[in-house]
Amino acid sequence: MWDAVAGNKKFDRVREILKTASDLEHAASLLFWDRETGMPEAASKERASQIATLGKIRHEMLTSDELGELIDELSQGMDLESLDDIPSLLRVGKRDYEQARKIPSDFVGRFAAARSRAAVAWRKAKEANDFFVFRDDLQHVLDLAIEKAELFGYETTRYDALLDQYEPEMRSETIAAVFDEIKEVLVPLVEGLSGLTVIDAAFLEAPVDRQKLREFGMEVATAMGFDFSRGRLDYVTHPFAAPIGPNDVRITTFEKAEFIGPLMALIHEAGHGIHAQGIPAKYVGTPLWGEPGLGIAESQSRLFEIMVGRSRPFWAHHYPRAQATFPELLGDISLEHFYRAINRVAPSFIRVEADELTYHLHIILRFELERSLIEQRLSVDDLPDAWNEAMKEYLGIVPDKPAEGVLQDIHWSMGNFGYFPTYSIGSILAAHLMELASRSEPAIQEELAEGRCDALRAWLVEHVYSYGRKLTPPELIKAVTGGPFTPKPFLAYVKQKFGELV
Amino acid sequence: MWDAVAGNKKFDRVREILKTASDLEHAASLLFWDRETGMPEAASKERASQIATLGKIRHEMLTSDELGELIDELSQGMDLESLDDIPSLLRVGKRDYEQARKIPSDFVGRFAAARSRAAVAWRKAKEANDFFVFRDDLQHVLDLAIEKAELFGYETTRYDALLDQYEPEMRSETIAAVFDEIKEVLVPLVEGLSGLTVIDAAFLEAPVDRQKLREFGMEVATAMGFDFSRGRLDYVTHPFAAPIGPNDVRITTFEKAEFIGPLMALIHEAGHGIHAQGIPAKYVGTPLWGEPGLGIAESQSRLFEIMVGRSRPFWAHHYPRAQATFPELLGDISLEHFYRAINRVAPSFIRVEADELTYHLHIILRFELERSLIEQRLSVDDLPDAWNEAMKEYLGIVPDKPAEGVLQDIHWSMGNFGYFPTYSIGSILAAHLMELASRSEPAIQEELAEGRCDALRAWLVEHVYSYGRKLTPPELIKAVTGGPFTPKPFLAYVKQKFGELV
Repeated sequence: MWDAVAGNKKFDRVREILKTASDLEHAASLLFWDRETGMPEAASKERASQIATLGKIRHEMLTSDELGELIDELSQGMDLESLDDIPSLLRVGKRDYEQARKIPSDFVGRFAAARSRAAVAWRKAKEANDFFVFRDDLQHVLDLAIEKAELFGYETTRYDALLDQYEPEMRSETIAAVFDEIKEVLVPLVEGLSGLTVIDAAFLEAPVDRQKLREFGMEVATAMGFDFSRGRLDYVTHPFAAPIGPNDVRITTFEKAEFIGPLMALIHEAGHGIHAQGIPAKYVGTPLWGEPGLGIAESQSRLFEIMVGRSRPFWAHHYPRAQATFPELLGDISLEHFYRAINRVAPSFIRVEADELTYHLHIILRFELERSLIEQRLSVDDLPDAWNEAMKEYLGIVPDKPAEGVLQDIHWSMGNFGYFPTYSIGSILAAHLMELASRSEPAIQEELAEGRCDALRAWLVEHVYSYGRKLTPPELIKAVTGGPFTPKPFLAYVKQKFGELV
Repeated sequence: MWDAVAGNKKFDRVREILKTASDLEHAASLLFWDRETGMPEAASKERASQIATLGKIRHEMLTSDELGELIDELSQGMDLESLDDIPSLLRVGKRDYEQARKIPSDFVGRFAAARSRAAVAWRKAKEANDFFVFRDDLQHVLDLAIEKAELFGYETTRYDALLDQYEPEMRSETIAAVFDEIKEVLVPLVEGLSGLTVIDAAFLEAPVDRQKLREFGMEVATAMGFDFSRGRLDYVTHPFAAPIGPNDVRITTFEKAEFIGPLMALIHEAGHGIHAQGIPAKYVGTPLWGEPGLGIAESQSRLFEIMVGRSRPFWAHHYPRAQATFPELLGDISLEHFYRAINRVAPSFIRVEADELTYHLHIILRFELERSLIEQRLSVDDLPDAWNEAMKEYLGIVPDKPAEGVLQDIHWSMGNFGYFPTYSIGSILAAHLMELASRSEPAIQEELAEGRCDALRAWLVEHVYSYGRKLTPPELIKAVTGGPFTPKPFLAYVKQKFGELV
């Protein structure tokens, strides 16, 4: 991508700064990956310092006056709306630069300290099952998140400033409207499905041979398009995907030896990995390499996990091999029983254990509560009651312990307000992308029935991955779907899939 | 260690720079460790860039005018000869700074490029068994090594400048004198031992269960004093130890499933690890944390590998458990047979496969040849013949292929002239330290017979590790032995151990 500006010394310097920042980011990814996969616990303090040091150097480079001036000078007379590589680099680089400059390093330090304290208090409160052990620290982190939002600035509503960190240019108004439409369909649908006889799904949590599961999972991920020669699979407590570089994309899953949890987490992370492996290599070392936002990223993991990995054609192909590999576990379970078991719907308290449908009600609840907190329409003291009321309204159940309610997630203690909605944005968009892809490429559904995803991946590379970070999420959604962010294809998919299961 | 200068802003800034450099070094260690243990091969180019980027940033910080000026200002009126923490920090920091400033970054780039090319040519030449495929690149790297020596400067002989990178303040004259004394004893001793009936040692290379070997090896390393809660064990092609931080010291060994090779490599690297884990934690984040030189470092790995790990008392204790763990392999082999098999002496072509005695003749040969090359008393064209002549003289055998002769080691292609002698310095010093320790602490030999090394490690912590990098190798040798570097205790040990085996 640099050929167009070869020999330009200012571009050479920009390239050098961005490449250095990219190397630092990837090195920090490895430090993080290693901490989660194999570092001796005794080293956690020194590792935190190492990660912070790389982050600090990177931040200094990316907020230097020099870089800002270079970007400004090089942008002169250039059409920054263009999707060509160099103008896109300057446009995205300028946006990143301006955002990064808004947060003074004094604030970064104060926020980090408050987060550390709050994470400790949150853990204690969760263990003690007492929200008020966490209350003061939550208030402090919330105050700082509000301060951060004011530092970033916003057009209409303060929450937008925080959302923007995770899903650039997405607006809370848009999300609220989409979530309202979804609630209207999901609340009664979940109620209806919950009334049905519950299918036996206990076998999904029975013990299996971990090595066999690893082989089966890697085979499935490979069939989907994840390239293990440019990545690897490891085990962690909280699964994630980490790009250490374009040819080193690492995925992880649960260590526990049971069938569906580790397998689905593996497929989910492989979806992230397929995305990372599919972004054009020429963008590496620039801000164009990466995902446009967390919702877009999640659309890829959820597309492979749900639209592929929980679909009938996928299991029609893979289930016989699963049965042959785990005869004691699955030998007596029919494909239909298995399919219904992995797609059963039932309200529960814990978000990360929720099924495909109720998951969104958990997210909507959090989005609404955190938006109210940030916009100071809800006080921290009233949060536990508000949580329980929303649970009653959306899922019909109320947790009797805060550890299974308002204290279950780590996000707020980390100050990550604005993060939750990206999970549902991902699923909603995944359904839309699958619908578009299947309509334009009939081969996709045919291949799926043969256990392959080549045509699907080719479509995604062309319509999503090839942009890298050139487009913001709303721009990308417009480019690929032709319209704004909409829940309609998602709702059509939900009604079709779950209507049939009633 | 910073309490003495608390509140001093200049010291605070020095501390910040050094801590950042230390974090970068440890992050780079992890990138290296990961490349060797588990990185997808496809990522080697991007990993090289990441490692180079961290190194470059670190080098810039450690050669900045700011750091130099701070060290100079803070040194004013301070007794830099003192072994207290702060004066030592300034003394060692100043030395490191001055050395690092001598090499311009333009040279670093040229040298790195030449090394990369030479490493490729070396591999090709080795495969083709043709020295002249490597000749021109070796000449180029040698020319640059000479240029580097001139940049560093030296008092009497050019080779000293290169040796100084690995063993600060050690002089080639000293080493040559020690090596001459050793040669005089070893050449006839090896000749005598080679004449004896060769003991059957084939069982040492028979296949064993890797998991059992791992458990046995970890038990032995733990008994020696390596703390696995602050480290881990992995498998690689070329074993090494990597401190990723004070509480994260990683050791590695061979992947192959045979008894003695992987076990001895594990013990060797555990020796390095015990050293790293024994340096006072207060020095972390400063140039005082680490080893004074490669020879001193090697003295610790060789002490545990040879003085402990190939000794009679050690195996008298551990052998019954080894037999119980590997009954098919060792059940019929007596302790005496085993002891003689692991200590057999026989001339061979390959340094890394050589026994305890002939190893030093391999090293002396390389030291003499590379010193002649650097001081331009030997031409590259004459190197292969000179190699074979020395082999004939020292070991009585001549390789018929350069791959088993002059082309066997990677060091020269990497430009690492001056590195080889540190291997023998380590063994020579290890024997001296063991003799001193055993004399002053009789408990050491008693514990060894019980399979433990607590008293030995306590002695090493007090007399060696506690200094960190405060002393140069000659200073440390003087501090611990009371005299200059001498081969006498090593030769006494050799005569005693191998005299008995004749």
